[in-house]
Amino acid sequence: MKKIIKNGVIVTASDTYEAEILIEDGVIKAIGHDLQANDAEVVDAKGCYVFPGGIDPHTHLDMPFGGTVTKDDFETGTIGAAFGGTTTVIDFCLTNKGVPLANAINAWHAKSKDKAVIDYGFHLMIAEITEDVLNQLPSVINEEGITSFKVFMAYKNVFQADDATLYRTLLAAKELGALVMVHAENGDVIDYLTTKALEEGNTSPIYHALTRPPEVEGEATGRASRLTGLADSQLYVVHVSCADAADRIAEARKKGWNVWGETCPQYLVLDQSYLEKPDFEGAKYVWSPPLREKWNQEKLWTALKNGELQTIGSDQCSFDFKGQKDLGKDDFTKIPNGGPIIEDRMTILFSEGVKKGRISLNQFVDLTSTRAAKLFGLFPQKGTIAVGTDADIVIYDPNAERTLSAETHHLAVDYSAFEGMEVTGEPVSVLSRGEYVIKDKQFVGNPGSGKFLKRSKFGEHSAQQNKELHTSSN
Amino acid sequence: MKKIIKNGVIVTASDTYEAEILIEDGVIKAIGHDLQANDAEVVDAKGCYVFPGGIDPHTHLDMPFGGTVTKDDFETGTIGAAFGGTTTVIDFCLTNKGVPLANAINAWHAKSKDKAVIDYGFHLMIAEITEDVLNQLPSVINEEGITSFKVFMAYKNVFQADDATLYRTLLAAKELGALVMVHAENGDVIDYLTTKALEEGNTSPIYHALTRPPEVEGEATGRASRLTGLADSQLYVVHVSCADAADRIAEARKKGWNVWGETCPQYLVLDQSYLEKPDFEGAKYVWSPPLREKWNQEKLWTALKNGELQTIGSDQCSFDFKGQKDLGKDDFTKIPNGGPIIEDRMTILFSEGVKKGRISLNQFVDLTSTRAAKLFGLFPQKGTIAVGTDADIVIYDPNAERTLSAETHHLAVDYSAFEGMEVTGEPVSVLSRGEYVIKDKQFVGNPGSGKFLKRSKFGEHSAQQNKELHTSSN
Amino acid sequence: MKKIIKNGVIVTASDTYEAEILIEDGVIKAIGHDLQANDAEVVDAKGCYVFPGGIDPHTHLDMPFGGTVTKDDFETGTIGAAFGGTTTVIDFCLTNKGVPLANAINAWHAKSKDKAVIDYGFHLMIAEITEDVLNQLPSVINEEGITSFKVFMAYKNVFQADDATLYRTLLAAKELGALVMVHAENGDVIDYLTTKALEEGNTSPIYHALTRPPEVEGEATGRASRLTGLADSQLYVVHVSCADAADRIAEARKKGWNVWGETCPQYLVLDQSYLEKPDFEGAKYVWSPPLREKWNQEKLWTALKNGELQTIGSDQCSFDFKGQKDLGKDDFTKIPNGGPIIEDRMTILFSEGVKKGRISLNQFVDLTSTRAAKLFGLFPQKGTIAVGTDADIVIYDPNAERTLSAETHHLAVDYSAFEGMEVTGEPVSVLSRGEYVIKDKQFVGNPGSGKFLKRSKFGEHSAQQNKELHTSSN
Amino acid sequence: MKKIIKNGVIVTASDTYEAEILIEDGVIKAIGHDLQANDAEVVDAKGCYVFPGGIDPHTHLDMPFGGTVTKDDFETGTIGAAFGGTTTVIDFCLTNKGVPLANAINAWHAKSKDKAVIDYGFHLMIAEITEDVLNQLPSVINEEGITSFKVFMAYKNVFQADDATLYRTLLAAKELGALVMVHAENGDVIDYLTTKALEEGNTSPIYHALTRPPEVEGEATGRASRLTGLADSQLYVVHVSCADAADRIAEARKKGWNVWGETCPQYLVLDQSYLEKPDFEGAKYVWSPPLREKWNQEKLWTALKNGELQTIGSDQCSFDFKGQKDLGKDDFTKIPNGGPIIEDRMTILFSEGVKKGRISLNQFVDLTSTRAAKLFGLFPQKGTIAVGTDADIVIYDPNAERTLSAETHHLAVDYSAFEGMEVTGEPVSVLSRGEYVIKDKQFVGNPGSGKFLKRSKFGEHSAQQNKELHTSSN
Repeated sequence: MKKIIKNGVIVTASDTYEAEILIEDGVIKAIGHDLQANDAEVVDAKGCYVFPGGIDPHTHLDMPFGGTVTKDDFETGTIGAAFGGTTTVIDFCLTNKGVPLANAINAWHAKSKDKAVIDYGFHLMIAEITEDVLNQLPSVINEEGITSFKVFMAYKNVFQADDATLYRTLLAAKELGALVMVHAENGDVIDYLTTKALEEGNTSPIYHALTRPPEVEGEATGRASRLTGLADSQLYVVHVSCADAADRIAEARKKGWNVWGETCPQYLVLDQSYLEKPDFEGAKYVWSPPLREKWNQEKLWTALKNGELQTIGSDQCSFDFKGQKDLGKDDFTKIPNGGPIIEDRMTILFSEGVKKGRISLNQFVDLTSTRAAKLFGLFPQKGTIAVGTDADIVIYDPNAERTLSAETHHLAVDYSAFEGMEVTGEPVSVLSRGEYVIKDKQFVGNPGSGKFLKRSKFGEHSAQQNKELHTSSN
Repeated sequence: MKKIIKNGVIVTASDTYEAEILIEDGVIKAIGHDLQANDAEVVDAKGCYVFPGGIDPHTHLDMPFGGTVTKDDFETGTIGAAFGGTTTVIDFCLTNKGVPLANAINAWHAKSKDKAVIDYGFHLMIAEITEDVLNQLPSVINEEGITSFKVFMAYKNVFQADDATLYRTLLAAKELGALVMVHAENGDVIDYLTTKALEEGNTSPIYHALTRPPEVEGEATGRASRLTGLADSQLYVVHVSCADAADRIAEARKKGWNVWGETCPQYLVLDQSYLEKPDFEGAKYVWSPPLREKWNQEKLWTALKNGELQTIGSDQCSFDFKGQKDLGKDDFTKIPNGGPIIEDRMTILFSEGVKKGRISLNQFVDLTSTRAAKLFGLFPQKGTIAVGTDADIVIYDPNAERTLSAETHHLAVDYSAFEGMEVTGEPVSVLSRGEYVIKDKQFVGNPGSGKFLKRSKFGEHSAQQNKELHTSSN
Repeated sequence: MKKIIKNGVIVTASDTYEAEILIEDGVIKAIGHDLQANDAEVVDAKGCYVFPGGIDPHTHLDMPFGGTVTKDDFETGTIGAAFGGTTTVIDFCLTNKGVPLANAINAWHAKSKDKAVIDYGFHLMIAEITEDVLNQLPSVINEEGITSFKVFMAYKNVFQADDATLYRTLLAAKELGALVMVHAENGDVIDYLTTKALEEGNTSPIYHALTRPPEVEGEATGRASRLTGLADSQLYVVHVSCADAADRIAEARKKGWNVWGETCPQYLVLDQSYLEKPDFEGAKYVWSPPLREKWNQEKLWTALKNGELQTIGSDQCSFDFKGQKDLGKDDFTKIPNGGPIIEDRMTILFSEGVKKGRISLNQFVDLTSTRAAKLFGLFPQKGTIAVGTDADIVIYDPNAERTLSAETHHLAVDYSAFEGMEVTGEPVSVLSRGEYVIKDKQFVGNPGSGKFLKRSKFGEHSAQQNKELHTSSN
Repeated sequence: MKKIIKNGVIVTASDTYEAEILIEDGVIKAIGHDLQANDAEVVDAKGCYVFPGGIDPHTHLDMPFGGTVTKDDFETGTIGAAFGGTTTVIDFCLTNKGVPLANAINAWHAKSKDKAVIDYGFHLMIAEITEDVLNQLPSVINEEGITSFKVFMAYKNVFQADDATLYRTLLAAKELGALVMVHAENGDVIDYLTTKALEEGNTSPIYHALTRPPEVEGEATGRASRLTGLADSQLYVVHVSCADAADRIAEARKKGWNVWGETCPQYLVLDQSYLEKPDFEGAKYVWSPPLREKWNQEKLWTALKNGELQTIGSDQCSFDFKGQKDLGKDDFTKIPNGGPIIEDRMTILFSEGVKKGRISLNQFVDLTSTRAAKLFGLFPQKGTIAVGTDADIVIYDPNAERTLSAETHHLAVDYSAFEGMEVTGEPVSVLSRGEYVIKDKQFVGNPGSGKFLKRSKFGEHSAQQNKELHTSSN
């Protein structure tokens, strides 16, 4: 089955031009003018941009957390993602100390395989580094295709790893070809501050922010970066929320270290004052790291513009306001952390970034798709519009105006983090491997049609290119 | 006439993939697999990368300097450029105070139009800002298509502009849609130091470097950047030679200012010690700014990797060692400044950058072509491989090994700045608007076939995209 | 005649302790407990600090400016200074291009010698560096005892020197043993901005600040610092008003360059909003550089605390609000620049600095007296309380509370820059070379009793110490 | 008994002047010219500087370490100190987890009281913070007069505290009035690197340095500083060895945080190459943090000059080369860490610092004595030459030339870290509370004559001054 996309303006991380795209067998076959394809179904992209499908490198779907489970699973979560223009997610697979990693991976496959409407991959959380864990990593990478590991510097006595674990993970990643991801907050200090806040009777949501000040994120980001430089390894800092942390990443890069940073839409447009909303509504805005003082936003935008931060993740992790968030009604530490962002991730970046002149169209594509594909071993199968690439494509109306709301979003969760926000730009149709998932703003996909993606080793694509050519020229 | 390029690996600033390219009427018509084009001439790119033709944003061809004229003119210069994979040059048109700008532009057209074998544009040097000059600028931009102006902070009593001129040029550029380029060295201090060196009998080439220390470049770069930030204008710093200047640019960008930096191959691989070569051979390596201590090189490479510097120019400005450079035999200030780099610009960056793992293939394309096209109003006509783009294409053998030398280069000048340097990578064939200029490593082009490029206003391409779509959607 | 100061707490830049001070012949003879001095007049300092008299390194008394003359001359100015605890001023002697420096110096001696009630020295303004000027400098330093030169980077076409002049002054100062002072603002840009503001009809006082933004001060400060580093000379940046400039000085010092910075009380407690006061009252607050946004104040205090800025000058330069400031009623560029600060300089620093815990008592003494003595060749004759030092002493009540006002100050000018400000701390008595100038808060001095101070060469005191000991030990 | 010091040049952290000093009852009674003191013993200081006795804030005397005990105890150690001009040491009292702090303090009193020839105080090591420990701290501070606590971020499984302990110690110190000291190296990473080095058979002394790279010190210094800023507490970073760590301290201070840094003579004049000396001689130079690459030295000197580092400690911790250091003959991790520096601390700083123009005489006094007295609650009893201060005085010949050597030093240990180094400057006589300890370069003191110093709370001296005056003025 063939499709041909006509009349649109194709945008990649580098280029912007008008041309037709011919899709065959789920892959881009040709790009050109006047392509011969009488038998192809025509997709009219008049007045629209044609973007590569977004890649959300940071989601938590169907994840247990503090005695509850995220409201959105791989079905509702990926449907929401698709409505927002995202065609690939990489979800975090949680492990437990002392349990074989395969168990966790199998559990995650079970959660996703009959539900996902778009393609997906997994990151693996590393709770501790033992000889036993080290022995399992080669097969995780080479056979399971899971080529990125996450280490937590926060959540003391739960997920928190010590520096030895972080350092050994960095060394293992370097040797085996994986990318280390880090949740960078100093858990020891947070643990002290939260305990103290509760002792003093400070239980409301704003104390979530006040007990995780930017200094603890800046500190941990600097620490992880320095360990990476020392190990000559590679690091990806998730959910950078503040100028302090972004500056540490910029410093590391200036030293020539392989450190990248991701920020999230919520840090670009929401701020700490949201946690003070009355009637416990602040709980809707509880993320870790927390929302920051407003002045950080412009610093983050500048970091995106200059390439000091490289990707946008959603950190999707949704809990109902009623029935889940209210677990922390009397104790902010019991509020499940996270919120629903997966659907609006690209929208926020387009409306607030491109439309307001903070970033270019090409940067938008790089930030929401291409760079993640490159860093996480999906390129060039995903992440761009080029011949040979999967036809994960978004037909995007840059002028559509609408208001974000829980009433109109497609997630299961009962609130929107951006309720009432007016935005410009909306996907009209979304294709996954050439098939419509969204068509004329309606969901037309099928749970279970999304495929698990075995990802390449870190840096393998570029290494391979050189080698292949080298061989073929002999 | 059609051509089809087969079997190669296409590389853009973002993507790397295998596909065929169909060229028609000098423009890329389609990219795909199994393209229908029986009537097209086949260009076999097996074992090769297919790059967009290089854009050299900084050349001085047929330019008078200190009583002599650069050895390479638009014919030999562009032939050399083509051999190195460059298909567009932007040359500096020199003006004189009190003389209509049109005179200078006409003179430059006369130098180039029957000689260039590849396409070319002009930058305009601004010697002073008077009401008269300001009145001429709109037509220079809108009618002549010259949309970048260069201001010199050095060469006291010759080219040097004062800060008022620089600031007013920045303001005019902002208003009219041009990019200001700056030669950033403090001419007052250099003037004092050179006068003093000569008084003390220090006349040999090394004193060229010693009288233009990195501090004078760092100072001027910081000054120009700050004036740009203050004017909310846009600045392109040419030939950044040292860490001090690169750091000033990075600082400016961190403040959110629109400042970009260009470095040159010579600063990446040669160093100050070359000026001490015996028998006056140091004169071959006299550039302004001068070559620096070797440790600066790694800092410049890191700045390229991180996007703190954005382009590679050649600053091509060649003078024979015998008969021209020796004008300064007894007085280093009389040595014509500059050297022959235009032909080896991309080679150095590929061999020392890509092959040694300092930058990626995609960065190579961005640095040598795409970014210059975008900054200087040539995109997307030039600077990438995409449907609709001029078929300026390089078939590049990444594994060819050779030794750079004046004996084998194609310039008129009598020496090579990289004599004896072993490099990997070489263009096999080069197309300009679909026609061979270089075929199987032989020159097959025609002087005069290169066309003058009227360039778009600064930032116009991206602005236009938004507007067009906005209109078309109504 | 002898005096003995009893019961006070002596404070120096290093020490704080209780002891008696015996003064003989205007000099400190001994410090101790139970000193034998029956014939000495007792000065009771009970409940008071005993400070070394302040040194104000930056005054403009009886200075012509823009068609008028500062209201306070060497009589009223030094009386006000004495009331505030200052016992030495160093005033700027203005020169004119083409006129022998001696003329200017003689003129300044004429203004001061019958009027000053405390000791004083001169700095010399350098308008241009010619061979003729260079030839005069040795005698200025060695015979006149004027060992510091000021260069203006602002006031285009009036005082502004180009970079060549600045650089040559730095080199001359290094060779001859002088300290270069710089007014660091980019005059070219200011000239453009002010002209444009007036053209656009923006004539009110606030435009004085808006046409001299912090960037022009930061730029010039960085430039002067870098030229100093390059020249391996020594630089003192006067009236640092903003974080941007203070940061440039800190950077220079970090590179090991000999750069020092002075700020003034007005920049520590007043801000840009004062220029917007109605009824032209903003004109009272017109300084160059201008008052800044309030957030700069805390940055300046931190710089003082950390030693990144080293002195406090008053930049005393007073003009009546009625009759002088109103020259600029219709044109802010005609408002005479400057204000009356000499009397309150130490008060502000004590009340806002020491009392509010921002700096220590010892730092207060260093900032207001000791450091200036050392930098400007007055140490150890002035600037501390030690045996052998001139008995310039302030008996300071740290708990006196009062309100600053033009009604109570002792200057001739008709307004106070700190009108209505409540402060803590006040000199009770002030001695100049052992004689009361202020006694029990009453002026008891004599115009003409102040002596001109021939100052030592830059760095001479410390050099001499080593040498003397070296000699004496043989 | 009275003494009078004549003919010398008195130097304090601020002043330099010629005067006599009258000493009575161990205290400075008066300073002046022609003091009446017929009954006083005359100390002739002709040709000499008269310095306040040095304060060494960082010694380990009679300390158990890795199965052995430092060679120098409170007798030989303080004798060596006195020969070098030091009259006060503050030694580290080691605690053990779960054992009452009083036990450790009593043990340290037992080690010192009959042996010390100069005065001394203790710092207390904090191994862990429990409620029990927190309860003991007030009496440690208020009754024992131990007002500084040290936390180790290195020595995993031995001394290493986690971030929670560090943070809680900072908070306790703020509340109780103590100064937190930190050994800043990342112990987790060091633990990994040392284990790995040994596994790979890398056992020689140079691996001590290679397994503790500067990054682990920079990281930990930045972390501790940031926790201090967050806690709004006060921190003193011991033995800063490299530019990376010094820069972190400077950054912290620029943010307004209360962070100070100490470096040691060994880091100023020795470098990493010393650990490669043949025949295991590298073991003599094993410190933690280790000696660094030579380029760090000039950075540390500049930091001292600019006040970015504030004190010089010796980190005295001596072990015989034969019989102790050789415990690590086959395993660098078993080499006892530390060396003999206490005697030469001031000599190195004078000879390499003052004599070579890197710091001033007054800075020398501040760095070796005054600042430590202020930070550690000994001022103004110790740390300066002023009326009322203990007569701890050094008569210093600035021109004496000699060669440092184990043959001539006065410590018990069998080698000198500075063997063969030629230095200028030597104490002639040293007084402790007015009594000779060293007289004409001979030891004339008595073990046990040194007294334990109960130190004031952090910041108490300055706080008290304000309060006293405030009170007395009412």
